[in-house]
Amino acid sequence: MLYFVGLGIEQSLSLRSLSELRHCEVVYFERYTSPSVNEESISQISAQLDPAKVEVVKREFVEDGRQILEISKRANVALICSGDPMVATTHQELWTRAKKEGILTSIVHGSSILCAVSGELGLHSYNFGRIVTMTREPMQYTAYNTIYDNLFRGLHTTILLEWNQSDNFFLNPASAIKSLEYAEKDLRQEIMDASTLFLVASRIGSDTAQTSALTFEELKTADLGPPPHVLVVPGKLHFTELEALGALFGRNPESFPDNSKRILRLSRRMVQRYTKKTLVALAGARKAAEASNKKINFADVFENVECYTRDAERFLNEGRDELAVLSIGYAEGLLDSLRFGGQLEFEW
Amino acid sequence: MLYFVGLGIEQSLSLRSLSELRHCEVVYFERYTSPSVNEESISQISAQLDPAKVEVVKREFVEDGRQILEISKRANVALICSGDPMVATTHQELWTRAKKEGILTSIVHGSSILCAVSGELGLHSYNFGRIVTMTREPMQYTAYNTIYDNLFRGLHTTILLEWNQSDNFFLNPASAIKSLEYAEKDLRQEIMDASTLFLVASRIGSDTAQTSALTFEELKTADLGPPPHVLVVPGKLHFTELEALGALFGRNPESFPDNSKRILRLSRRMVQRYTKKTLVALAGARKAAEASNKKINFADVFENVECYTRDAERFLNEGRDELAVLSIGYAEGLLDSLRFGGQLEFEW
Repeated sequence: MLYFVGLGIEQSLSLRSLSELRHCEVVYFERYTSPSVNEESISQISAQLDPAKVEVVKREFVEDGRQILEISKRANVALICSGDPMVATTHQELWTRAKKEGILTSIVHGSSILCAVSGELGLHSYNFGRIVTMTREPMQYTAYNTIYDNLFRGLHTTILLEWNQSDNFFLNPASAIKSLEYAEKDLRQEIMDASTLFLVASRIGSDTAQTSALTFEELKTADLGPPPHVLVVPGKLHFTELEALGALFGRNPESFPDNSKRILRLSRRMVQRYTKKTLVALAGARKAAEASNKKINFADVFENVECYTRDAERFLNEGRDELAVLSIGYAEGLLDSLRFGGQLEFEW
Repeated sequence: MLYFVGLGIEQSLSLRSLSELRHCEVVYFERYTSPSVNEESISQISAQLDPAKVEVVKREFVEDGRQILEISKRANVALICSGDPMVATTHQELWTRAKKEGILTSIVHGSSILCAVSGELGLHSYNFGRIVTMTREPMQYTAYNTIYDNLFRGLHTTILLEWNQSDNFFLNPASAIKSLEYAEKDLRQEIMDASTLFLVASRIGSDTAQTSALTFEELKTADLGPPPHVLVVPGKLHFTELEALGALFGRNPESFPDNSKRILRLSRRMVQRYTKKTLVALAGARKAAEASNKKINFADVFENVECYTRDAERFLNEGRDELAVLSIGYAEGLLDSLRFGGQLEFEW
């Protein structure tokens, strides 16, 4: 049997996992998924078991997995991991392989930063959208687009930062911010600027845990102490979340901006721009029609242009963006047709 | 000082929380946030502390909170909760009030079903969208719309089901399915039908934990045993997720459908419908123009209608939905203007 045992973000065994680990003949301890696991925590935890049974293993050993699976076929084996065991892809893959080979498995879940971060910051977990990881690679467009998608819906985004044990690399928040700034300049969705609010949860689960509320600009130079850090881009904040943030950071709850406000849907921008243009052109067309001596019934067209322009604005206010765009496009077409047909000349 | 101590979904104290609880003069134990806490688990946990110090409390007591906060000002007080303490709104509110009153707080996180469910089902946590809770109230449109929003982006949705300790009510999965069916009939986004795949995680963390993969239709009558249950509507499944599901349920990985495939964006439906209509009308208009003896230059209008119709389809294929809708609306307007002005008569 193969046990996956999570230490939680506090790096502490539960009584349940302790009793299961004591039945295990072999205990592997991986330390590559979290910078919070160190020599001290390893020896503390090993001391609670039989230290001779505990073997600290590297990523390659777990990825290869053959030895773990082989022994699990005839003995009770455990893999101790930081946080929740199943958040790491390598553990999930090992679990799948064990299932395929008919090895019984059991997961002892642990607390995970994915869930803890909302509580530490006073935010509601159901107001979070998709999470995203940022790495040291350039072009972090996935992170940027995920933040955009979430903000569009008013949701918060948790950003995990790359940690690589083999070269002891942790992506620092300032570098992450610079990557986002680069993406903003390149993609120009105008989702963040110097004043955008970021929340940071540092070393959660340890004695030196710390939370911060900083602007995009402040984060570039802030000293947040040693890793791990998790960033959160808050979306629309519920009033209880605002109160919690106010209490947490000793600030006026109203001082926290709504990052989602600046997200202008493309459809909204389109309808606003084209409504203005269409109404100006309509006024011009009406003047041209008065001056014209053609026997064409322009009144019906003009009335419809006006109607559909009004509809577009109404649909937009109702959140029916597609219909709004369709209507303003239609209104424009009605009017423009008069020019293409040579019936009227007027300015757009 | 006020400690919030999570038991995790396994209802087990960690060594760290045990040592903190032993410093507490008063320990409150709430059992209203999870049906997994029962007399047995309460007495087991109390036995690890000084049972005389432990007081089981109801929702009203925590919501009122005054006694807890008052004692926390001069003594070490703990509130033991199932799962992660900060997932429940009442606990978050108490935490905010404590902060406001200058009471030191500490959270000992526990594993939470919100995070554990992905691992138990072999799904990646970063492929989940916003979570949602369903209650016994009719009109569960929030759940329906959340599933739609998530599927639209290919993401999985976790659905928590209402549990109310005071009348021992747990929303069963079959009732939840019926609510979703009702919403589907009413809102007609066509996001699910009888064959839509649902995953169920039942009693996770207990010895009788069980996972199931069922269709929408099967869920209406499935016997899943006692609560708690959590539903997951998977979106687009990564091949490693498909493999995990295959291994978990002993099925061919390819037998799991992609629920996100049937999500037709409204803009796509609009452009497809109106393109067809516009091209038919254009053909009619051309015939009418040939038969007409008016000296109007229809050719320019017709050419533009054709151009913008083609553009609409191209924009759609490029994922530029707003532009696609604008273009098809414009093409329609160009053509329709000829009718409103009385220049041509043709059928739409």
